[in-house]
Amino acid sequence: MNDTTPLSWAQTAPRLVAVAAGRSTADTVIRNGIWVNVHTRECLPGHDIAIAEGRIAYVGTDASHCIGPDTEIIDADERYMIPGLCDAHMHIESGMLTPAEFARAVIPHGTTSMFTDPHEIANVLGLSGVRMMHDEALMQPINIFTQMPSCAPSAPGLETTGFEISPEDVAEAMSWPGIIGLGEMMNFPGVINGDPKMLAEIAATQMAGKTVGGHYASPDLGSNFAAYVAGGPADDHEGTCEADAIARVRQGMGLMMRLGSAWYDVETQITAVTEKGLDSRSFILCTDDCHSGTLVNEGHMNRVVRHAIACGCDPVVALQMATINTATHFGLEREIGSITPGRRADIVLTSDLETLPIEHVIARGKTVSEKGKCLVECPHYPWPDTARGTVHLGHSLTETDFEIAAPKGANSARVNVIGVVENQAPTQALVRDLPVDNGLIEGQGDTFQIALVERHRATGGVVNGFVSGFGYTGRMAMASTVAHDSHHMIVVGTDCAQMALAANRLADVGGGITVFKDDVELALVELPIAGLMSDSPAQEVAAKAQAMMKAMQTCGCTLNNAYMQHSLLALVVIPELRISDLGLVDVTRFEKINLIRTDR
Amino acid sequence: MNDTTPLSWAQTAPRLVAVAAGRSTADTVIRNGIWVNVHTRECLPGHDIAIAEGRIAYVGTDASHCIGPDTEIIDADERYMIPGLCDAHMHIESGMLTPAEFARAVIPHGTTSMFTDPHEIANVLGLSGVRMMHDEALMQPINIFTQMPSCAPSAPGLETTGFEISPEDVAEAMSWPGIIGLGEMMNFPGVINGDPKMLAEIAATQMAGKTVGGHYASPDLGSNFAAYVAGGPADDHEGTCEADAIARVRQGMGLMMRLGSAWYDVETQITAVTEKGLDSRSFILCTDDCHSGTLVNEGHMNRVVRHAIACGCDPVVALQMATINTATHFGLEREIGSITPGRRADIVLTSDLETLPIEHVIARGKTVSEKGKCLVECPHYPWPDTARGTVHLGHSLTETDFEIAAPKGANSARVNVIGVVENQAPTQALVRDLPVDNGLIEGQGDTFQIALVERHRATGGVVNGFVSGFGYTGRMAMASTVAHDSHHMIVVGTDCAQMALAANRLADVGGGITVFKDDVELALVELPIAGLMSDSPAQEVAAKAQAMMKAMQTCGCTLNNAYMQHSLLALVVIPELRISDLGLVDVTRFEKINLIRTDR
Repeated sequence: MNDTTPLSWAQTAPRLVAVAAGRSTADTVIRNGIWVNVHTRECLPGHDIAIAEGRIAYVGTDASHCIGPDTEIIDADERYMIPGLCDAHMHIESGMLTPAEFARAVIPHGTTSMFTDPHEIANVLGLSGVRMMHDEALMQPINIFTQMPSCAPSAPGLETTGFEISPEDVAEAMSWPGIIGLGEMMNFPGVINGDPKMLAEIAATQMAGKTVGGHYASPDLGSNFAAYVAGGPADDHEGTCEADAIARVRQGMGLMMRLGSAWYDVETQITAVTEKGLDSRSFILCTDDCHSGTLVNEGHMNRVVRHAIACGCDPVVALQMATINTATHFGLEREIGSITPGRRADIVLTSDLETLPIEHVIARGKTVSEKGKCLVECPHYPWPDTARGTVHLGHSLTETDFEIAAPKGANSARVNVIGVVENQAPTQALVRDLPVDNGLIEGQGDTFQIALVERHRATGGVVNGFVSGFGYTGRMAMASTVAHDSHHMIVVGTDCAQMALAANRLADVGGGITVFKDDVELALVELPIAGLMSDSPAQEVAAKAQAMMKAMQTCGCTLNNAYMQHSLLALVVIPELRISDLGLVDVTRFEKINLIRTDR
Repeated sequence: MNDTTPLSWAQTAPRLVAVAAGRSTADTVIRNGIWVNVHTRECLPGHDIAIAEGRIAYVGTDASHCIGPDTEIIDADERYMIPGLCDAHMHIESGMLTPAEFARAVIPHGTTSMFTDPHEIANVLGLSGVRMMHDEALMQPINIFTQMPSCAPSAPGLETTGFEISPEDVAEAMSWPGIIGLGEMMNFPGVINGDPKMLAEIAATQMAGKTVGGHYASPDLGSNFAAYVAGGPADDHEGTCEADAIARVRQGMGLMMRLGSAWYDVETQITAVTEKGLDSRSFILCTDDCHSGTLVNEGHMNRVVRHAIACGCDPVVALQMATINTATHFGLEREIGSITPGRRADIVLTSDLETLPIEHVIARGKTVSEKGKCLVECPHYPWPDTARGTVHLGHSLTETDFEIAAPKGANSARVNVIGVVENQAPTQALVRDLPVDNGLIEGQGDTFQIALVERHRATGGVVNGFVSGFGYTGRMAMASTVAHDSHHMIVVGTDCAQMALAANRLADVGGGITVFKDDVELALVELPIAGLMSDSPAQEVAAKAQAMMKAMQTCGCTLNNAYMQHSLLALVVIPELRISDLGLVDVTRFEKINLIRTDR
């Protein structure tokens, strides 16, 4: 691994002092900009910034004394100079991109720091996968801090992941150079109930002096919430309304407000600041999950800040929420998050604070983007074969693997069906009476088959069931190795032969997403890294993902976020009914149930 | 050492979670108070606080579920519940009290956390003295964090201290449990000039992840200030006007505003918040130096917060400046500074936020004061003989040690005289023509003799000179082993015999302050620990100090802060003229000069 982390303030102080004093010359000077000061909440025209060794040496009204013949001069031309933007919590895998390609996609949007939880790869490759993500993160020209995943599996006993994360893993990871804390502690019932394993993970993080990420996905703000807070999580991004926001901040948590590709939690919570007037220092912006298409077409943290401003937030306050507030939360306020001496020189030039055009991006003192173009290399980690070949089927699948036998002699069968709900993550637990043909239960109307294909240990396991709500027609199948959170393979189809084709295709290409119709592949998104990510550029992945979603429509699907609905069908922590490698799971009672009901 | 630091959040989390969830009962519950929330800046009536293991387990509208038969109930009776107050920077030695007795004096004033720089003892006893202060600090029932002194001597080459502090000392101290950072980096010219030793001390602190205290005592806000900031100091308490405050905060520093016994820097700087509207998060309150009399008669951090409010600051904002802002600055926001789960249960009950009567003080979950009485033990460190016997004179002094020989045959002599200036720390460099009698130069009018008596290495050295401005009359002398910063012995007198009496007296008692008149001791303050501190209660020390100052008046002194003026006469870092063990020092040019001038 080539760790590009810049020299520390301590290491560079002699040079920084010399530049500020005028005894040495700066590497770069930005002249005549409006200094957006996130400490004081001021916009100060007529300021210069001198940079040396990738850090800020001087900010003042005249840096002439820092300029020598070799100093690069950047004319800010009276534009605003804002700190590089920080994404306080996110999963790189959600972009279907490796850290390098994710970085390349977001640099032109002014993102210079990300706090990333490689939770998905942890389920597939365990601690070694986390380490690969961490290592590629440290190779990038921007700051990518890694949060050690806390909850793999997400639902112990209800699914089998490729690997599990233990408290010992967490303790070990805390010594890695790029680890900033613990990833979201999703097992909130575990914390509330005093689960020793969860508390041990939190303790290992706290004892390392690092930040424990939270995830409290419940509207209950009573004693359960209180118990969760008492357990140690220092932030939360699962709030969805003003009351959630206020409760979290009052209890001393950092309140992370999400605007992801499919999360819209800023507008409903930021009123705690804009209307209720709460001190804004604990309010932080993040994306959590962004698809490559969002990154290509809409932006990243610049999109979130713009949105916060559009929601009525003062622009400098909104910028604080994406800079100094984030840095302070993670104990990095003397390292990133403001344009002040000693900090990494992560600076964005923009001509307007409300529309926030990202015109020039400087990271660690170097220009990394101008006018929307990434101008810097984002090196790739040498992903080993173990990371590239993660789709292990026990055998080549045939249509018989997907056949669902009816009880002997039955003409029809009453079954439990996963009901997809438009625009919602929770599913419905439906009951349907389905016809039997040749001893096999068949789909009917908008109810088709779903299969969870084991792909971590080549057990050959296929769990079959039924799903409703996609609107598919004709002979088709869609398969994906992105299958939160255990990331086996989810296959949905109207026809067992198409399902086998799709599943085998993903085994052949090492993972990804495919759509088959009438024996023809309509679309393929190759995700060779862990079956989750591509190391191709975001534009290419976004185009393929777009084509994949179009293929779903071609097959008759009418849902808004059809692919996301597909990939969440195995998420056995969100109600009501899901599928895992162990069977159908009733997520209202956290227990397995049978596919075929006996209550007719 | 008996370290009373409470169990960590990680260690106590299982219990805290159980209490919050209602599965275990709290040790203490405070009922029905107004929760002053320094995260949101709200006052929330009708709240309860549940405490277990010295930490806060639950804050909410009803802690009934946390109460068992053994739970102590404290009725807040609709009073305000504010976080225990924090003093962000201070020198315990200034109170002439040991850490234990200082703690006992300030607990009834609501102080539960102090960030202390034992700079004075470092000059007398070096690293071992710092360790003793650190160890006694950790024995106390409140939180006393130690800042490792950075600058002993303060003025290398111009004075000889008992011990010197090296970068290696700093690096070693960073591993001690109670060290929170580096004490004020007073050698600002050293930092500006890139002195490797000063930068090494800063680097050792930063690399340990701790906070570098600053001290920039100059009105120059140009490139010198910029260079100092670039060197790494993270805060400063030497600002005296609004422009100082704004400059420091804009540059990313914590701005510490002082109200000490003789420092009045809050009113002149807080307008940056109250009038200019700057974000207040970087503004912090501290005392720096408080005499025992101030502690006994006026208060401690409660006095500072009251004063900030009287200056027009919103009460909750003022409280933030003495709680969460301080905690965040030192990276302790998940440990102290707010009333939220997981934090140490440091809580003050008060019936009025503006006058701030301190009615009930809880530290680490235990009641430590009610109605102005300290109800808890503050254990004493077993100070060794090396700390108690620090006044080492080479021999018993006689009046001849203080005689100042005139140039041979002279009838008068032109001499450099230290001119004390009423109500100011800087002195004036005066020139006086003095008479000669019997070959000795004699004082005249308001110009008397001053002597710096070496007391660390028993060299027998006595440096004699003249001082003007005290207004003494008759035959008297005053001596003190508090002599910033090297803490030799300063003797001022109108008569050589009285001077010898006073100096020998302090050698006999192991240090302190004494006033002699006509061969009779008018007052004595014994300071047996390092010649700087008493391990008697604050009331006793304050009474003796009061008697000492009265004795100075009896001798004719008319100055407002006569004792402080006396003890600062050897402070060879503040202009214009001072005395050290090496001679007279011109502090405008940082060089030694002769007593007797040749320019007549």
